[in-house]
Amino acid sequence: MLMNAAEYRESLRSLSPRLFVDGQRITSVADAPSLAPGIAAVGTSYDFAHDPALATLMTARQSEGGPLVNRMLHVNATNQDLLWKLEAVRVLCRESGCAQRYLAHDALNGIFQATARIDADRGTDYHQRFRAYLADVQERDLAIGIAMTDAKGDRSLRPSAQANPDTYVHVVGRRPGGIVISGTKAIVTGAPYMHQFLVMPCRAMQADDAAFAVCCAVPADAPGVTIVARPAGRPGEADAIFSARYGQSTGVVLFDNVFVPDDQVFLNGEWMHSGFLTSTYATHHRHSCIGARAGFGDLLIGAGALMIEANGLDPSRHGHIRDAMVELISIVEGFFACGVAASTYGIADPAGSAQPEPIYANVGKLMLATKIYDMQRLAHHVSGGLVVSLPGPDEDHNPETRADLQAVLGGRADVPASHRLAVGRLMEDLTASYQAGWYSIISLHGGGSPEAMKREIWRNYPVAEKRDFVRQLVDRGLAGPAAVAVAEGDQPGKCCDTGCEAPPAKVAE
Amino acid sequence: MLMNAAEYRESLRSLSPRLFVDGQRITSVADAPSLAPGIAAVGTSYDFAHDPALATLMTARQSEGGPLVNRMLHVNATNQDLLWKLEAVRVLCRESGCAQRYLAHDALNGIFQATARIDADRGTDYHQRFRAYLADVQERDLAIGIAMTDAKGDRSLRPSAQANPDTYVHVVGRRPGGIVISGTKAIVTGAPYMHQFLVMPCRAMQADDAAFAVCCAVPADAPGVTIVARPAGRPGEADAIFSARYGQSTGVVLFDNVFVPDDQVFLNGEWMHSGFLTSTYATHHRHSCIGARAGFGDLLIGAGALMIEANGLDPSRHGHIRDAMVELISIVEGFFACGVAASTYGIADPAGSAQPEPIYANVGKLMLATKIYDMQRLAHHVSGGLVVSLPGPDEDHNPETRADLQAVLGGRADVPASHRLAVGRLMEDLTASYQAGWYSIISLHGGGSPEAMKREIWRNYPVAEKRDFVRQLVDRGLAGPAAVAVAEGDQPGKCCDTGCEAPPAKVAE
Amino acid sequence: MLMNAAEYRESLRSLSPRLFVDGQRITSVADAPSLAPGIAAVGTSYDFAHDPALATLMTARQSEGGPLVNRMLHVNATNQDLLWKLEAVRVLCRESGCAQRYLAHDALNGIFQATARIDADRGTDYHQRFRAYLADVQERDLAIGIAMTDAKGDRSLRPSAQANPDTYVHVVGRRPGGIVISGTKAIVTGAPYMHQFLVMPCRAMQADDAAFAVCCAVPADAPGVTIVARPAGRPGEADAIFSARYGQSTGVVLFDNVFVPDDQVFLNGEWMHSGFLTSTYATHHRHSCIGARAGFGDLLIGAGALMIEANGLDPSRHGHIRDAMVELISIVEGFFACGVAASTYGIADPAGSAQPEPIYANVGKLMLATKIYDMQRLAHHVSGGLVVSLPGPDEDHNPETRADLQAVLGGRADVPASHRLAVGRLMEDLTASYQAGWYSIISLHGGGSPEAMKREIWRNYPVAEKRDFVRQLVDRGLAGPAAVAVAEGDQPGKCCDTGCEAPPAKVAE
Amino acid sequence: MLMNAAEYRESLRSLSPRLFVDGQRITSVADAPSLAPGIAAVGTSYDFAHDPALATLMTARQSEGGPLVNRMLHVNATNQDLLWKLEAVRVLCRESGCAQRYLAHDALNGIFQATARIDADRGTDYHQRFRAYLADVQERDLAIGIAMTDAKGDRSLRPSAQANPDTYVHVVGRRPGGIVISGTKAIVTGAPYMHQFLVMPCRAMQADDAAFAVCCAVPADAPGVTIVARPAGRPGEADAIFSARYGQSTGVVLFDNVFVPDDQVFLNGEWMHSGFLTSTYATHHRHSCIGARAGFGDLLIGAGALMIEANGLDPSRHGHIRDAMVELISIVEGFFACGVAASTYGIADPAGSAQPEPIYANVGKLMLATKIYDMQRLAHHVSGGLVVSLPGPDEDHNPETRADLQAVLGGRADVPASHRLAVGRLMEDLTASYQAGWYSIISLHGGGSPEAMKREIWRNYPVAEKRDFVRQLVDRGLAGPAAVAVAEGDQPGKCCDTGCEAPPAKVAE
Repeated sequence: MLMNAAEYRESLRSLSPRLFVDGQRITSVADAPSLAPGIAAVGTSYDFAHDPALATLMTARQSEGGPLVNRMLHVNATNQDLLWKLEAVRVLCRESGCAQRYLAHDALNGIFQATARIDADRGTDYHQRFRAYLADVQERDLAIGIAMTDAKGDRSLRPSAQANPDTYVHVVGRRPGGIVISGTKAIVTGAPYMHQFLVMPCRAMQADDAAFAVCCAVPADAPGVTIVARPAGRPGEADAIFSARYGQSTGVVLFDNVFVPDDQVFLNGEWMHSGFLTSTYATHHRHSCIGARAGFGDLLIGAGALMIEANGLDPSRHGHIRDAMVELISIVEGFFACGVAASTYGIADPAGSAQPEPIYANVGKLMLATKIYDMQRLAHHVSGGLVVSLPGPDEDHNPETRADLQAVLGGRADVPASHRLAVGRLMEDLTASYQAGWYSIISLHGGGSPEAMKREIWRNYPVAEKRDFVRQLVDRGLAGPAAVAVAEGDQPGKCCDTGCEAPPAKVAE
Repeated sequence: MLMNAAEYRESLRSLSPRLFVDGQRITSVADAPSLAPGIAAVGTSYDFAHDPALATLMTARQSEGGPLVNRMLHVNATNQDLLWKLEAVRVLCRESGCAQRYLAHDALNGIFQATARIDADRGTDYHQRFRAYLADVQERDLAIGIAMTDAKGDRSLRPSAQANPDTYVHVVGRRPGGIVISGTKAIVTGAPYMHQFLVMPCRAMQADDAAFAVCCAVPADAPGVTIVARPAGRPGEADAIFSARYGQSTGVVLFDNVFVPDDQVFLNGEWMHSGFLTSTYATHHRHSCIGARAGFGDLLIGAGALMIEANGLDPSRHGHIRDAMVELISIVEGFFACGVAASTYGIADPAGSAQPEPIYANVGKLMLATKIYDMQRLAHHVSGGLVVSLPGPDEDHNPETRADLQAVLGGRADVPASHRLAVGRLMEDLTASYQAGWYSIISLHGGGSPEAMKREIWRNYPVAEKRDFVRQLVDRGLAGPAAVAVAEGDQPGKCCDTGCEAPPAKVAE
Repeated sequence: MLMNAAEYRESLRSLSPRLFVDGQRITSVADAPSLAPGIAAVGTSYDFAHDPALATLMTARQSEGGPLVNRMLHVNATNQDLLWKLEAVRVLCRESGCAQRYLAHDALNGIFQATARIDADRGTDYHQRFRAYLADVQERDLAIGIAMTDAKGDRSLRPSAQANPDTYVHVVGRRPGGIVISGTKAIVTGAPYMHQFLVMPCRAMQADDAAFAVCCAVPADAPGVTIVARPAGRPGEADAIFSARYGQSTGVVLFDNVFVPDDQVFLNGEWMHSGFLTSTYATHHRHSCIGARAGFGDLLIGAGALMIEANGLDPSRHGHIRDAMVELISIVEGFFACGVAASTYGIADPAGSAQPEPIYANVGKLMLATKIYDMQRLAHHVSGGLVVSLPGPDEDHNPETRADLQAVLGGRADVPASHRLAVGRLMEDLTASYQAGWYSIISLHGGGSPEAMKREIWRNYPVAEKRDFVRQLVDRGLAGPAAVAVAEGDQPGKCCDTGCEAPPAKVAE
Repeated sequence: MLMNAAEYRESLRSLSPRLFVDGQRITSVADAPSLAPGIAAVGTSYDFAHDPALATLMTARQSEGGPLVNRMLHVNATNQDLLWKLEAVRVLCRESGCAQRYLAHDALNGIFQATARIDADRGTDYHQRFRAYLADVQERDLAIGIAMTDAKGDRSLRPSAQANPDTYVHVVGRRPGGIVISGTKAIVTGAPYMHQFLVMPCRAMQADDAAFAVCCAVPADAPGVTIVARPAGRPGEADAIFSARYGQSTGVVLFDNVFVPDDQVFLNGEWMHSGFLTSTYATHHRHSCIGARAGFGDLLIGAGALMIEANGLDPSRHGHIRDAMVELISIVEGFFACGVAASTYGIADPAGSAQPEPIYANVGKLMLATKIYDMQRLAHHVSGGLVVSLPGPDEDHNPETRADLQAVLGGRADVPASHRLAVGRLMEDLTASYQAGWYSIISLHGGGSPEAMKREIWRNYPVAEKRDFVRQLVDRGLAGPAAVAVAEGDQPGKCCDTGCEAPPAKVAE
């Protein structure tokens, strides 16, 4: 049952979360102006699933002959699925800035793999339980928030050593048919307008931390859940050309003795598997982030081209403008290419699903995390300085100044001042506003900070194999000159026997 | 008569500019909440002049035994003055984000040099006229806005070829005792709370553009002047820890048949000198920008250190945190060093004043223009992701959530959540808000866009001299091996005779 | 008939090119010590084709059931072929530094596409002629040098305007059964040890330049051909651990009234197609360059790891060493990912072959062109300063110092000084020698200089489409707030109808 | 007694060091072709001291009325001295690539400061002893090599824990009138053609390492000293346009029971002062490195301009060529500016001398360490690809090809091919040869690797002061809005009392 955006919005009326936005209790999420841009952004993921032209990207079947489900709730079966998902996220975020719903995809895929692995190791039956859950959320086409990043308290201490254990979510007890959890998740994207939360551990755990190794699904309005959030985007701001329409709300979610029935629990104390679950989710999520920020890059590229046109400049004649656009394009397509490579070299998981190749997923995320700032710089470069002195939108209705400003603030003869101002405000909205700051910080830290990506790259890369390959070269180099070796029928290819078992990147067969 | 900040604010009551902020007419600048942060920021330049510990930096005498004047209105006599001015701007902007008043300094210095040159070339008497003007503004300790950047209209056409000539300010006629000007200046920093504007040309002109070659002083409330601006900073926003206190307003200033008495006119039709005036101002201004952004850098460095502390991290143990701080420091001190070098190698002008060495001034401005984005990245890096999900300040007073949030959002045991949140909001204010965007764009485009700096560097650098020096090396290299040459008493130093007339950077004597 | 390296070397005896290396006439290419490293490097492409483990990568069939041919002579039929070729080039260059033979692949693919296009436009029959030629070189498994970059003379003048027309290769006349060409190709990789040259135009031409629009195959020892080259690698240098074994010779090839039979001619005066042939070759070649430099990157990564180990350092404990390695890895895999994306999104040519997607091919080449210098920096970073003061290899046999040096120049207890010195010399050979300089410059300028890539990216990117997409967002933003729009069932997805005809990057179906 | 280059060379005949170059014993340093480029490079520091136009830079007096001494042996008395030294090093290295002798300056200055400090702390009399030594070397105008970097052995162990103590130089005993030292210094610049070595510790020591805390002067031919080195530059290579004339030899120096008389000993067991001596030397040396590499930058800038001219290109018309030159200039002047700032803000040492401000000295060295690779990239960028296929110099005398190559390899009509080839070879020599690699690695690691600079910047920067300054801003921000504060006469300047005691960078008074 694929909902559309309007149905999704309506569906939120069936929930009554305890929710505060900017200190005010929100009683109807569907009607709150402060959340409308967030609901609209998530809504794109619903509407696009009904667009025939996008059917391949936006929908999928979990099994041959099974029902169509939204791509954002689909567990990838093949590398082609990974590529379609990547492209789907890009298309969604080009429209909405950030559609937020891909986090659900990333978590569902991570839990799918991890539960199979835990069962194999511990004899549990989480995987079947999760498959039933998966089928249900696909059928109901839910919006699911990912509650992963704990509040963390003193960062130099492990979860179980915190003075206040509620700085991390953890199991505090058991009631018939389920567990009881408490604690705080500090950064939950889209929290106010989700149907459910998937609670996940945010790090590897040790035996002492067993109570903190918990993964489960919780309805947004389960008793004991409190959501504290900020508005989504810049609702109601007249100069927010883009983010009055689409935005993201990031919230803190407090769990206070929340009961979770067993069939919604997918990890409960198996601390030794917490790290795998976390890093597998992270690999999916970094891959999705690449698509998301490429979509945002499309917005900047388009806005830059529009601004150049409004200013009356021609990139073919103004080399530095063209160079800035090419640099912007190269950044966006450069990290997107890493997402493509992570798909093309996707890895089949024993659970039967496909996951992105982790090195490329991490290299791409690392690239975008730092390059987002250059993207802003380049957007500013091509826009010119006008952006800082744009009269505010209220000026548009000031009878005393309106005509004069219109007369002198235009650019090319065929570009009216009002259009140039609107484009300038769009650029400000995307690159020089609170919303712009959100995009930067979420790009840098979302899905893990640069240090985390570096660790993963180092952990996964076949450095030892390359070292050994070069060691052979040195040994051969010391043994004698090449020319003779060739003449004598030496086989330089021989060392490659080793090389080819684990070839440079990954050799497809 | 050095005013202090309170006196400066009061002095604004004597003016009645026609001023609109966000579409509303402002009747009392001194009392407008929307402008208070701007007045406070400019005010620092007044108050600091009374601080004994800062006397050397903040005040100067234009002549031996003359009265003390504010450094921001002083024409530099020596290279030491240039250095003191640079440091003064840094100290002011560390306090205020951007004190804005150094633009007056830059313009006064540029006009001082240009008028002497015009007089020498054209037999005019602008320089004496300007000296009288200078003494007056120093005596009255005025705040002067620089009205330089025209609206420009179609950027592919020169001023005199514009369909609407009012896209540039120009002389439209003469009345007894003075000239009449019309047109639009599009980016005037601090426009709403200035006593006067210095109108300046923004480019080199050709003979057809003679009417556009005009430089003069105009009171902010001269008949025919209209100012359209946005609020300064983020006045009244509860989470604007910094920019509710200090901010900058950038405005559009419309001139409609404004009369300017002759003794306030410093360029009028001498189009061939327009380029010199513009570029001389630019050299001073780029030099000042270096100090300004270094002061902003100090804010980021301090805020980063505070955030790290609040998060409970120790840069000595977390290498990537220390590396990020060192990179931030190296960026700030790297471009500030260019400002120091431009001072140390300052150039004596025939007019009797000192100007910054242009290559270093431009290299430094070019560096900060692009590195400001890296500064934001590094500030975000050391802050962590919390900045994006900070509950808003209204939450601080929400009895239903306040206690719970305080309990879990702290960092180290000795850092209460309220402090950590405040630091996080400061960081957001400085690096992820509309105000942050303003700092970035003004850094990139203020004082000229990167392309302008590149042109100036290329125009001023002794490339031909270095080419000729190397040509000699090649000729010597072709003539024979060095060893023999040395043995035969060849004089490698000889070629340096040339070299030393115009040595590598600039050899002080 | 797939030759192996030894057979390839022997096959060179059947040719008698007029060849000078360092001013000396070479009479037997197969036996010249100065060329041995070059022959060995090309030889890897022959030997690897016989390695069963590499069969998929190194060989292919041009048609179903056709004979196995070397991948380096294969015209790609599918996107999978593009990926296998990319990986094949990486594996070859990891072994040999640069196997050089992929240029033949790139030219054969470019001519395949161009001849079909010329025939369709001009009614010629080049394509069939070329297919016969292709089958022949595949059957004989030839090494083919690409003679493309003309000497160019005065770069501000077109070919036909040069004072000396021989600065470009051009048709000077016709003899029965063929054409006669003269002129100079200035940068021909591997020139001394090739069986044939493919002469290709290096730019778009105009009508006046028709005589310069010529593409044809010429045996290396055709009468009138003279090759002037430098040694391949650093043959015979005792400290050239790597490049005494494998190297590249780049030569100037002079054509003096050389007769070319018609069946070897694939472009002759059709000047309007010269640009297409050039840019199509360039797209294939830039794609191959990505694989080649990734292979070189593998060498640096392995050498870096080996050096770290020899120095007794542990990247897990020395964060800056690990960071440098991760940066090196990220650079290499970052540009390689662009090659993968260019394969995955490969484009079917009307001629029936597949070509790399040009934007990704150009972005990847642009990335490696500038990052090769960072790769050297990082390799030096992890190696430490010892590389500059390594005693030379002759010292290894000096009885007066050998024992003392061995005693003190070791690193970790289990790493003898001789091994550490060998690794240090390898690093010097790869990153601080003439050979290292060759890798840098060829990476920067080979396959076109950065400016050429930027032009291609700008020419191919769908900027207008993205601009129009954002224009709709602005128009919608001006039309009214989003919240209402959503409520009223507005269809944000609608604009995507357009978007999806030409989706963000390229949506595979 | 200021020697000139010829006298310096002759003076080497009075020494008989035990010296091996490439495995051969050298009996006469002054006559060894393999060392001639090194002697010539050091020679520039002698000859330039006699050039009247350079007198201010190249010579100084240690005391009022004292004799003129070479700047390279002068202990700085003022900040102006620091600037002159910086400029002197630049002028020398522009001529010679690297004049090497400034290391003596750096060590003499470091020991001058350290001995005064040790005496004050330990009651020793090293400082007077050193002053006598200083006067002597100034009078004799010696060339002094700095033997600092030990061989280090297993880098994870301290000196006293090494299996072989000879991996570090240390005191092995005492004989009447002096000490006896043994061990290995691994990277000694200019070792073969120095009169003396100054042995210095390369790190902070602990009590166990007391025997390793030794600083003393040793004649190059003292019994027990063995020097193992490589040739200086590329002597005798016909295509080494530059480095056949000027070069650097870096050597390993082995000390085997070398006796050092007490009056040549300046540290002997005072392990707690080893770190200060090392880091003080490093500060001087990093400052000098800035001047040195700026001189090398001048060579590249000049060579680039020459190459552009020879290729017939005009940077004013080819924007990417101009941009590359501006980037090259900005890099060189950017780090040089740090050297200027370190001079302008130089610090008076209690010993009575002046030392460079350490933050700027380290920021500048860090900048050049990494940017040297970009300098090579930019030099290659403007040179074009021809550099890789230049026919070798032997081809110039090949009668069979010479005329043809000359005819086609020229550029602009007025640039003969021979000149263009010479410029191309110069560029290859400077940026793509063994010598080029030496410049890169010595820039990266010489004077300490990047990690060392980062540590010094972090250690010296007033981070705590900036943190406290911002803490006050936060506290004020929380206390209430700015507007009110200003109205009430709050004194924002007050906090600056603190600020001004230790101002942003360093406020000169």
